[in-house]
Amino acid sequence: MVAHDPRLRLTDEARESLLAQTIELPSWAFGNSGTRFKVFAQQGVPRDPFEKIADAAQVHRYTGAAPRVSLHIPWDLVDDYEALAAHAADLGVTIGAINSNLFQDDEYMLGSLTHPDPAVRKKAVEHHMRCIDVMRATGSTDLKLWLPDGLNYPGQDNLRARQDRLAEGLQEIYAALDPEHRLVVEYKFFEPAFYSMDIPDWGTALLHCLALGDRAVVVLDTGHHAPGTNIEFIVAQLLRQGRLGAFDFNSRFYADDDLMVGSADPFQLFRIMHEIVSAGALAPDSGVNFMLDQCHNIEPKIPAQIRSVMNVQEATAKALLVDTEVLEAAQRSGDVLGANGALMDAYNTDVRGLLAELRESQGLAPDPLTAFAASGYTEKIVAERVGGAQAGWGA
Amino acid sequence: MVAHDPRLRLTDEARESLLAQTIELPSWAFGNSGTRFKVFAQQGVPRDPFEKIADAAQVHRYTGAAPRVSLHIPWDLVDDYEALAAHAADLGVTIGAINSNLFQDDEYMLGSLTHPDPAVRKKAVEHHMRCIDVMRATGSTDLKLWLPDGLNYPGQDNLRARQDRLAEGLQEIYAALDPEHRLVVEYKFFEPAFYSMDIPDWGTALLHCLALGDRAVVVLDTGHHAPGTNIEFIVAQLLRQGRLGAFDFNSRFYADDDLMVGSADPFQLFRIMHEIVSAGALAPDSGVNFMLDQCHNIEPKIPAQIRSVMNVQEATAKALLVDTEVLEAAQRSGDVLGANGALMDAYNTDVRGLLAELRESQGLAPDPLTAFAASGYTEKIVAERVGGAQAGWGA
Amino acid sequence: MVAHDPRLRLTDEARESLLAQTIELPSWAFGNSGTRFKVFAQQGVPRDPFEKIADAAQVHRYTGAAPRVSLHIPWDLVDDYEALAAHAADLGVTIGAINSNLFQDDEYMLGSLTHPDPAVRKKAVEHHMRCIDVMRATGSTDLKLWLPDGLNYPGQDNLRARQDRLAEGLQEIYAALDPEHRLVVEYKFFEPAFYSMDIPDWGTALLHCLALGDRAVVVLDTGHHAPGTNIEFIVAQLLRQGRLGAFDFNSRFYADDDLMVGSADPFQLFRIMHEIVSAGALAPDSGVNFMLDQCHNIEPKIPAQIRSVMNVQEATAKALLVDTEVLEAAQRSGDVLGANGALMDAYNTDVRGLLAELRESQGLAPDPLTAFAASGYTEKIVAERVGGAQAGWGA
Amino acid sequence: MVAHDPRLRLTDEARESLLAQTIELPSWAFGNSGTRFKVFAQQGVPRDPFEKIADAAQVHRYTGAAPRVSLHIPWDLVDDYEALAAHAADLGVTIGAINSNLFQDDEYMLGSLTHPDPAVRKKAVEHHMRCIDVMRATGSTDLKLWLPDGLNYPGQDNLRARQDRLAEGLQEIYAALDPEHRLVVEYKFFEPAFYSMDIPDWGTALLHCLALGDRAVVVLDTGHHAPGTNIEFIVAQLLRQGRLGAFDFNSRFYADDDLMVGSADPFQLFRIMHEIVSAGALAPDSGVNFMLDQCHNIEPKIPAQIRSVMNVQEATAKALLVDTEVLEAAQRSGDVLGANGALMDAYNTDVRGLLAELRESQGLAPDPLTAFAASGYTEKIVAERVGGAQAGWGA
Repeated sequence: MVAHDPRLRLTDEARESLLAQTIELPSWAFGNSGTRFKVFAQQGVPRDPFEKIADAAQVHRYTGAAPRVSLHIPWDLVDDYEALAAHAADLGVTIGAINSNLFQDDEYMLGSLTHPDPAVRKKAVEHHMRCIDVMRATGSTDLKLWLPDGLNYPGQDNLRARQDRLAEGLQEIYAALDPEHRLVVEYKFFEPAFYSMDIPDWGTALLHCLALGDRAVVVLDTGHHAPGTNIEFIVAQLLRQGRLGAFDFNSRFYADDDLMVGSADPFQLFRIMHEIVSAGALAPDSGVNFMLDQCHNIEPKIPAQIRSVMNVQEATAKALLVDTEVLEAAQRSGDVLGANGALMDAYNTDVRGLLAELRESQGLAPDPLTAFAASGYTEKIVAERVGGAQAGWGA
Repeated sequence: MVAHDPRLRLTDEARESLLAQTIELPSWAFGNSGTRFKVFAQQGVPRDPFEKIADAAQVHRYTGAAPRVSLHIPWDLVDDYEALAAHAADLGVTIGAINSNLFQDDEYMLGSLTHPDPAVRKKAVEHHMRCIDVMRATGSTDLKLWLPDGLNYPGQDNLRARQDRLAEGLQEIYAALDPEHRLVVEYKFFEPAFYSMDIPDWGTALLHCLALGDRAVVVLDTGHHAPGTNIEFIVAQLLRQGRLGAFDFNSRFYADDDLMVGSADPFQLFRIMHEIVSAGALAPDSGVNFMLDQCHNIEPKIPAQIRSVMNVQEATAKALLVDTEVLEAAQRSGDVLGANGALMDAYNTDVRGLLAELRESQGLAPDPLTAFAASGYTEKIVAERVGGAQAGWGA
Repeated sequence: MVAHDPRLRLTDEARESLLAQTIELPSWAFGNSGTRFKVFAQQGVPRDPFEKIADAAQVHRYTGAAPRVSLHIPWDLVDDYEALAAHAADLGVTIGAINSNLFQDDEYMLGSLTHPDPAVRKKAVEHHMRCIDVMRATGSTDLKLWLPDGLNYPGQDNLRARQDRLAEGLQEIYAALDPEHRLVVEYKFFEPAFYSMDIPDWGTALLHCLALGDRAVVVLDTGHHAPGTNIEFIVAQLLRQGRLGAFDFNSRFYADDDLMVGSADPFQLFRIMHEIVSAGALAPDSGVNFMLDQCHNIEPKIPAQIRSVMNVQEATAKALLVDTEVLEAAQRSGDVLGANGALMDAYNTDVRGLLAELRESQGLAPDPLTAFAASGYTEKIVAERVGGAQAGWGA
Repeated sequence: MVAHDPRLRLTDEARESLLAQTIELPSWAFGNSGTRFKVFAQQGVPRDPFEKIADAAQVHRYTGAAPRVSLHIPWDLVDDYEALAAHAADLGVTIGAINSNLFQDDEYMLGSLTHPDPAVRKKAVEHHMRCIDVMRATGSTDLKLWLPDGLNYPGQDNLRARQDRLAEGLQEIYAALDPEHRLVVEYKFFEPAFYSMDIPDWGTALLHCLALGDRAVVVLDTGHHAPGTNIEFIVAQLLRQGRLGAFDFNSRFYADDDLMVGSADPFQLFRIMHEIVSAGALAPDSGVNFMLDQCHNIEPKIPAQIRSVMNVQEATAKALLVDTEVLEAAQRSGDVLGANGALMDAYNTDVRGLLAELRESQGLAPDPLTAFAASGYTEKIVAERVGGAQAGWGA
């Protein structure tokens, strides 16, 4: 029988990989969010980018694994980015990817980079110039572009012409990047457009990246696919092309639910991490940025981010426990049950104790959620952050 | 060969049915709507329930088929419902169903009628008492209840206990109705809850109605189903049980897109109307209320409602053109292609000329969209409705 | 921190429940199966019902949890059912549910119980009389009816008339049952019909059961739902109505894939078992029969059944480990993360060691798969079962 | 108001396009087919490739639009291809694409071109050499490869290694083609594999084609996508890349139902043809081969193919009726309702009379179905084709 104690099975190398893994947090996850029906306000929610970064730093403080914070422009516009970066550094974190926003300006109602009107397209391109300035000011190297453009009705616009306009706009943006910058392009199956998105799938995103150049890579948001889509296959495919730039982690039962990663289908998250690990893409220099992109509509935001980081860590630890030799031998010999069993053996292992020990070895509390709850931080921000406009989507 | 001119094939009885069909409009379709990302404002949008009804009356003026307007409480709360009803009557329309709203109060974050806290459940029940008062004041006979309650995470609450609480709340509401009132209960697959809705499907809605009594009936919103669901089967099933109370018409490609009815899958709308016609449920006394429930996020609202009414009329006209004798003979003899062909023959018929003639026979313009555009109404409201808060979801 | 060793947390009562749980095996899982493209033959596959039962008995021998075998009529027709039952008893198993087959007779091309031709319907009803005779001969108490009837094309037949015919046929079958017999009715979303199944969902199955009487109950096949359907909600709903008669366990990524239960989404299986456990429906006298219904197209059949039984046991053990007090307290107080965490704590526990110990306490080998592999049974049947027609669907 | 008589609106050029459109028929559509549960036999079904071609020629005889027949190897293996081609020529048709079959050999249980065993991969490559010989003997220029390879269970094999093996095998096949040959590569979402197909989507198929060279193009089977996928977007995308090689037309409600094209969602078929027409890809020299790929499980096969050809013609005629000037003006000006209305105006037009006239102008009967029924051909083959093994999948 297989030894079920994972500590006996984790190699030193795997242990180092686990310790080295980092997960980027999105600033907007700390503001209020909701559905089209209602955004429920929570007490203590940040009122500006500085407070968002402070909250994000708490997640890093208790997990030791979340040292970067993505910004969102214009939501996170501030007068002084050096001050924001310094604030982050003081709290032990750095600025990660810069996300451009193409969905909240009235002029973008019928599209931004794909809009029939050249003036609107020009405006959308120029917004990215502003984002690149923020990158320079903050030291960020990833410009992240999620295109909300699309159509609600058949015939509303010309599907193919929109691809041409998009290619043109991306070219201008890509040309403006500094040599150390990447353009990371995200795709989405549907929403906010309900007939056809202009970048609906990985194939479309990849074709645009291939046309742009080596520093254009694809972002895979785990919630942005048709029902039943095999996401780990896409992970493998993008890795094979050398174009998997980042993850936007979250989870879903139906549409783009943006629930905590690993909460809807933990086995899927494990399978994704297995593709990452087996392709050697866990290493910090692999070019794959692991980010969260979630909406905490009804649960408290900081603990929800902590839990999400832990979920990614648990899936990663299990992926690192796969006995590669046993797995590959079974695969080679056509032993269907044996190969599947080798994978499941790792998945079925309880790695929470292992991760608790690793945290303690880093001087962290074994259970980040308990430690955060005991810290009094929540009570403090609820008391302090009274008045002012809470941050949220659109704020 | 079959005669393709539909005027030669429409029976007098079918012609009368077409002329008698009415479609109820939702007041909220005239306010701004959007996605969780953005609500785009449109010029001339109503600022209060009186203006919403004025716009709805325009749809009736040009189609002759939309004489009722559903209200939504609290969005359409006014001080004087007699005045609102009189305003409607002056414009040639009446008040239709009263929709209760259980999703926009902060206390409802974790549920309303199913909330674990009895105080919240009590509040939700009492909200319906207020709605029933509005019914009495406006002469409305349908209390429409769409339950947004549900869970985002497995384990968040007890699925079964929530059904028990729901049954209890519905009982109290049902008991408060007047004898001429109906409770119409809507189901929805997902959104705003992303793990489990408390009334996710027609089976659940129907079980609650059966437990309540004869005046509890089901609302079928065409956008509220899992991918691939055969909606006309559900129509047939609910008609067979005598419990199809109403439609909320709209259309979808993905989730609950709330696009104009008939715009995504006109053949499906035709199949639905074929079930209605073949069960004799088109008649005004059938108990089936045909309503629209749509979001015009990017298109102008009044023409979009006109187009939607026309789409329902076209689907209905085609359903009335089905040659029942040919169809049934083919069905009885197991002639698969013949039976399908009989249905398709009606669907493939162009009924627009026929409907234009019917409109003219009623003293209406043959093309409602052209006539409305020429009326100058849009220009008038754009000029008049400057200032004030535009109506929208939540306004 | 929570104690992760599950042995410390399993109550005596839960331990007894685990030991008492039984899972029924389908005779057809031991024959060859496949897709419409190809059935791949495996060596040693049974050639008659006696050999199927012998193979099923192996699963029971090594798991101690699979003491019943479902038969399928006409696939498992034999001359002497007393002999078959005695053969089963010799091998330590009994005969479980009797499945009627309504899909392999040429006359059923356009339907069986719903066929437009009364003669075909009569034949289909009479087939069930034969099945009831087999029940009497074998001591089976469950007549299991999965209706493959449906339409491929809109208009092909009258949806509502087919419900009426179905109700009539079910009435005749139900009337023929002995007092100790149950009729268990299964639903399916699609396949073999591709436009509309006549029992496509739990609502339809339940309505027919309610019309029949107390001994008509619903079978939930985990693969028979639309994408995204929340299956545990249906489990809770049917338990609330007292009408969950049985499971057909298997798993799926896409359609009715019929993969090994727990292999595609082990978390879903756990959530289902959590509903079962929390409603007290795990007890043998609950009326819920846990059955497998799977196709082992490419993997060896006996080990695949063993693995499936183990998967159900693991999910059940985890469900029994849920700390109900912690869970309910969190639910009552609206602690979303706490309640979800209580559930996940059980799910994330590794219960394999616990189950190995329980097996040893029953005198079984701790790992059934290893023990079966070491037994030489596979080699024996491969050598012995040469010649003759292998059993399979349709054989 | 728009003139609804389509004859007044069809330009001469569009009329010529309609007359020039051809649709290729699959030989296997004339044999029996079914589901994994049952293949129902029909009287008069062909017993060899010669009889299949004779039946296909009937479809061409009555529609004038189906002059090519695809073969399937090994199902359509004959000793003398010159004789088969001559037989086809005598009946007025030619041989179209040659389809390789990689799913019915026992050795392919775990894959063909992606199998872990190099010997199996070699065999699969060599099977294509045989197909290329058939191409040379029949004058076919398209080698069509649908890869049924994939996995049923996570871990069963290495996803990425399978892509590498596939790339290698395709390279060998591509290298063996003659200069006038194309390799047309089909993708499929799922089935027969239920966890992961090796070519599951258009992105994967296109990447392999790009790696191979200019004569490798993608086949779009309309039934091979995830629920909700916007197929016309993929059409536009592949046309934009110059890599849309062919369609496999059919229709679906759920999975790969293989129903008659246009029967499940005629509006979708119209939207697809609108992309084709607006990209100029209807022209015979566009490189897009319009083929049917359907299963007539319960309907008679020749009339079902005739109906399918007519459905494609009707969708094409409607697409040709789109008033491009009105559409583009509305698109440019952001007139959402106007642009959608321009498309719908064409879709809502009844083109059956127009097509009947076009047929008569070619010396054909106006209604192919009636003319075929009156011809006595069905009665003749039912009488003649008694005895022998009927063709079907696998026969």
